[in-house]
Amino acid sequence: MHKTRLEAFSDGVLAIILTIMVLELKVPHGDSFAALRPLLPVFLSYVLSFVYVGIYWNNHHHLLSSARQINGSVLWPNLHLLFWLSLIPVSTGWMGENHFAPATLAVYGVILLGSAVAYFLLQNRLIALNGGDDAPLARAVGRDWKGKLSPVFYLLGIASSFVLPWLAGAIYVAVALLWLVPDRRIERSLRAQPE
Amino acid sequence: MHKTRLEAFSDGVLAIILTIMVLELKVPHGDSFAALRPLLPVFLSYVLSFVYVGIYWNNHHHLLSSARQINGSVLWPNLHLLFWLSLIPVSTGWMGENHFAPATLAVYGVILLGSAVAYFLLQNRLIALNGGDDAPLARAVGRDWKGKLSPVFYLLGIASSFVLPWLAGAIYVAVALLWLVPDRRIERSLRAQPE
Amino acid sequence: MHKTRLEAFSDGVLAIILTIMVLELKVPHGDSFAALRPLLPVFLSYVLSFVYVGIYWNNHHHLLSSARQINGSVLWPNLHLLFWLSLIPVSTGWMGENHFAPATLAVYGVILLGSAVAYFLLQNRLIALNGGDDAPLARAVGRDWKGKLSPVFYLLGIASSFVLPWLAGAIYVAVALLWLVPDRRIERSLRAQPE
Amino acid sequence: MHKTRLEAFSDGVLAIILTIMVLELKVPHGDSFAALRPLLPVFLSYVLSFVYVGIYWNNHHHLLSSARQINGSVLWPNLHLLFWLSLIPVSTGWMGENHFAPATLAVYGVILLGSAVAYFLLQNRLIALNGGDDAPLARAVGRDWKGKLSPVFYLLGIASSFVLPWLAGAIYVAVALLWLVPDRRIERSLRAQPE
Repeated sequence: MHKTRLEAFSDGVLAIILTIMVLELKVPHGDSFAALRPLLPVFLSYVLSFVYVGIYWNNHHHLLSSARQINGSVLWPNLHLLFWLSLIPVSTGWMGENHFAPATLAVYGVILLGSAVAYFLLQNRLIALNGGDDAPLARAVGRDWKGKLSPVFYLLGIASSFVLPWLAGAIYVAVALLWLVPDRRIERSLRAQPE
Repeated sequence: MHKTRLEAFSDGVLAIILTIMVLELKVPHGDSFAALRPLLPVFLSYVLSFVYVGIYWNNHHHLLSSARQINGSVLWPNLHLLFWLSLIPVSTGWMGENHFAPATLAVYGVILLGSAVAYFLLQNRLIALNGGDDAPLARAVGRDWKGKLSPVFYLLGIASSFVLPWLAGAIYVAVALLWLVPDRRIERSLRAQPE
Repeated sequence: MHKTRLEAFSDGVLAIILTIMVLELKVPHGDSFAALRPLLPVFLSYVLSFVYVGIYWNNHHHLLSSARQINGSVLWPNLHLLFWLSLIPVSTGWMGENHFAPATLAVYGVILLGSAVAYFLLQNRLIALNGGDDAPLARAVGRDWKGKLSPVFYLLGIASSFVLPWLAGAIYVAVALLWLVPDRRIERSLRAQPE
Repeated sequence: MHKTRLEAFSDGVLAIILTIMVLELKVPHGDSFAALRPLLPVFLSYVLSFVYVGIYWNNHHHLLSSARQINGSVLWPNLHLLFWLSLIPVSTGWMGENHFAPATLAVYGVILLGSAVAYFLLQNRLIALNGGDDAPLARAVGRDWKGKLSPVFYLLGIASSFVLPWLAGAIYVAVALLWLVPDRRIERSLRAQPE
């Protein structure tokens, strides 16, 4: 099992997910600025999902570059993560085209939740492969409070979709911002080890 | 002939096949959960095909990482496999949009069969290049009972499409599950050899 | 942080942006040469955008191959650049389908401007990481008059979209030509250093 | 200039071209085999173009792996080739949807011709960079009779599109078959050199 090819394949899928999302931004009808207005919610949901896919790419990148051991048992947890992420474009488009209607917000939250759980499972598989809870990878991941908090927030978002739709949207944006703040844990921890 | 570039190109094509399949999941019309219901068969067929493409990626990955010798004669058997796999998205979409109608199940089976045969030809080409039947690659592949059984099942699936459509679907799911069970043969065999 | 994976991911996204632009070139209705005529503006805008994405790929390639130090703080500036570039296909299609109408020219200019600013920020981040203004990377980038001039031209293009649309188009073409002239600075400068 | 990244980017673009062609194979309307019949010409044109893109990938692969020297002056000839190849999907779809009508056959020929000329220019640039006509790369390429003959055939195909459409189609198929016959020149020549 070569880590390189797993990374290359995941990069390929993530790059395509990131890029086909823009296909939901259909060429507007009409040649004036007014023709752009109906695109605004689709555009905003695109920005949010672009950030989420970017966050997953960054985290995936850091996680795999911290892992020294890898084997065939990682392939399916990795594909499982890519499966959930592959649903982001269509649910982004659905949310944008329907102006963040309750059901679309809830489904978006479910897909974020599924992605977070899949990432958690992949991370656990890699920690188990790399010496368990006391080994460098486990220490690099640390207490992972962001990873543990995010699913709770997604559940709150899903629950509030039907009561306070704007709150659901705000929660999804907040979680993205939480991750955007650079996470130097793994890099710092890695720097302390000999390469 | 560098194995790296063959792998990178195949990874690219497989990543795109995996990802464009999701384009068949069209953004639903309507903003309620009820709007999702017509998508269910398309979604189920997407899950099945995602698993199949994942299986091919895993097997292709293992096969190529076990092969030490490679040359230009591998390029077309590899492209032949990618050709069959490239037909999976459209036949998945056709099957899903028509609620697994007999003809769509049969065509899906034909494409799975074509892919299996193409994989078999690629594997044989690589075994021949890597010392034949007694060499490490041949031993790593082993008796390959899954590879030999699958086409028989696909034929059964195609045949039953018109008599018992649900059986055809069940067969395709069963073959996927058969492969999902991790196949440690090649990894074990490779581990026994010096890298 | 491995430069290779950052490059591979960026290459993936750029390759997809380059290629999905051609999806805006819809299969013409009718089977005569006359059926191609309505495609001409879409085709011309495709050529222009292809050249722009090609320029960004070249520059990105040179910039990253000149950088010796890289870390996690580069990931978001890089994704920010890819975000702006990902908007090129839809704005190209809008411009082409509306025969270079004023608003479409202005929006195209805004996206070129955003891309240029994002590239500038990425370049600055990399220079800061690589020893600052006196280090080899800063010298390789040099005074970067093209990079400083382009945003000015884009602003001129945006401004003239509503007054003299043809001038806006001419400016975008001129900036592309400016960059097409091979830029040997970085390569020359790199050649002077030991690898 | 690192050859790896040029190859990776080209592989990415070629993989996407190969795969988005299948998007022209629209999900058929209707759930019977009869619904597949209208797809037949689109399918046949897809097979032909798949083979052509495969040939270009193979040749590009061989050419670049034979080249030892590479620099920035190769980037645009390479992008120029990718530009022509990127037009293959839309012209394939046009040809297929219009049952190989004269104008569509002629345009397909023009794009094959443009690709062949672009490949020739790239090859010349690489030969000049790698020691000129007496150096290993030039000897590896050899007299390149296939490369010189193909444009002549494409011109014949274009010319006959309006007189004998079937002949144009036959010529395009024949040129593809000509290239499918494995071309061992470069590999043989390379094997004779020390790696």
